[in-house]
Amino acid sequence: MAAFARRKAQWLARPDPSRKRALDARAAELVRLLNARECFCSASSCDGRVVVMDTDGTGIQKKNCTWLLVTHDPCVKGDVMAALKKATGDVVFKFEPFVLHVLCRGLQDAQLLHSVAIDSGFRNSGITVGRGGKITMAVRSTHCLEVPLSHKGRLMVSEEYIEFLVHVANQKMEENIRRIDRFHKGLERALEAADTLQKLCVPADTFPEGPEKSHSVYVRRRKRQTAQEQAEPSRELEPHDDTENSLGLFAEIMI
Amino acid sequence: MAAFARRKAQWLARPDPSRKRALDARAAELVRLLNARECFCSASSCDGRVVVMDTDGTGIQKKNCTWLLVTHDPCVKGDVMAALKKATGDVVFKFEPFVLHVLCRGLQDAQLLHSVAIDSGFRNSGITVGRGGKITMAVRSTHCLEVPLSHKGRLMVSEEYIEFLVHVANQKMEENIRRIDRFHKGLERALEAADTLQKLCVPADTFPEGPEKSHSVYVRRRKRQTAQEQAEPSRELEPHDDTENSLGLFAEIMI
Repeated sequence: MAAFARRKAQWLARPDPSRKRALDARAAELVRLLNARECFCSASSCDGRVVVMDTDGTGIQKKNCTWLLVTHDPCVKGDVMAALKKATGDVVFKFEPFVLHVLCRGLQDAQLLHSVAIDSGFRNSGITVGRGGKITMAVRSTHCLEVPLSHKGRLMVSEEYIEFLVHVANQKMEENIRRIDRFHKGLERALEAADTLQKLCVPADTFPEGPEKSHSVYVRRRKRQTAQEQAEPSRELEPHDDTENSLGLFAEIMI
Repeated sequence: MAAFARRKAQWLARPDPSRKRALDARAAELVRLLNARECFCSASSCDGRVVVMDTDGTGIQKKNCTWLLVTHDPCVKGDVMAALKKATGDVVFKFEPFVLHVLCRGLQDAQLLHSVAIDSGFRNSGITVGRGGKITMAVRSTHCLEVPLSHKGRLMVSEEYIEFLVHVANQKMEENIRRIDRFHKGLERALEAADTLQKLCVPADTFPEGPEKSHSVYVRRRKRQTAQEQAEPSRELEPHDDTENSLGLFAEIMI
């Protein structure tokens, strides 16, 4: 525990080029809430953003690409059109949702964070346990856009489509913000509940359903019957649609 | 251990509506490899697919949407055009990459799988530790497309764009297949290495770098300097670009 605290202090004190830009406002609030806790240390975060990038058309966006536009605010058609004028290759427009990486002192801490993230809509969240037992919780969402716009410098869509795309991206940004707020509130509640239990000195194994339930933060996930399941019963356990449903069914067997 | 084995047998024996469709070929091979191991049990999988869906425009695709087309094979412009003719709302074209969920007997088993997944390019992979200690490893990728095509039934792009989009989606499908093959080979090697160590009865704490290294399956991740980092040094630790880089830097401090 002392080792985690020492290293956390060292990490937070280091000069960080990405922090030259003020932390995105919502991410900043969450980061403060987390870093105020001994068991968490924020590693990286982004509120969500729209990106327009010029690529070489290989489809591998990490190589040979230029960023023409990046914004963490609602985007504007004019900015996108201006960015497109600078393009020479294959331009891709992306909306990337909120992402947050948190180093956790112990697995139960990561589980608490993970549960809150899933319940807030961040369904691609997951834990990593690295070398030496380092535990990271990544808050991630599937809620994105990735739209090819031009090919070898030639714009393949109309200006009207760009306006429509910007509207869709901004809608996603609004939903993204709602999820961040849900996550923030959920995290506050979960941490308060954990504090309350700690003050009451309630042992972790008091509750018959298992140690995790003693945190009182694992909200029972509602099994939602989606339109897909109604239309295509064979799709009930499709891995993309609702991970939690298929794994929930497994869980019923595994308990 | 016996409990995991019993429940695995029960899970694999259950009638599964999603399995009415023959397992995607590549997923089937991986599933066989995993299920042959006592410590793994496949929960759900998909090789990767193109989906065209008609939505109500709320941006929440789980509600009120109809699937017009789904294919796990390279898609064809004609099929997409035919699907679009049936649309009445806001149509979205998606490429969804390989996804695989595996229940793991222990955390080290999940870590092995996770390491292979990350090294194969599935950078959004993560572990879940659920109620009662159930461990799941989800193999996930960021490699996707999500493209709005029509608004209130009106197609917003040209047929030429659809052809271009289909070409881009098929490129992503090819890269997706390469990653699955890398994952398969990497998994075979990792499992062989783990078997070799077990036969040699090498204790987990023999190696000075820590228990995970004794598996010899954690390939040192190369720090790749991307075009973004060259162009925008302040972006070095951007959480979306290369999670492993920013966490790798943290790891250097934390070790």
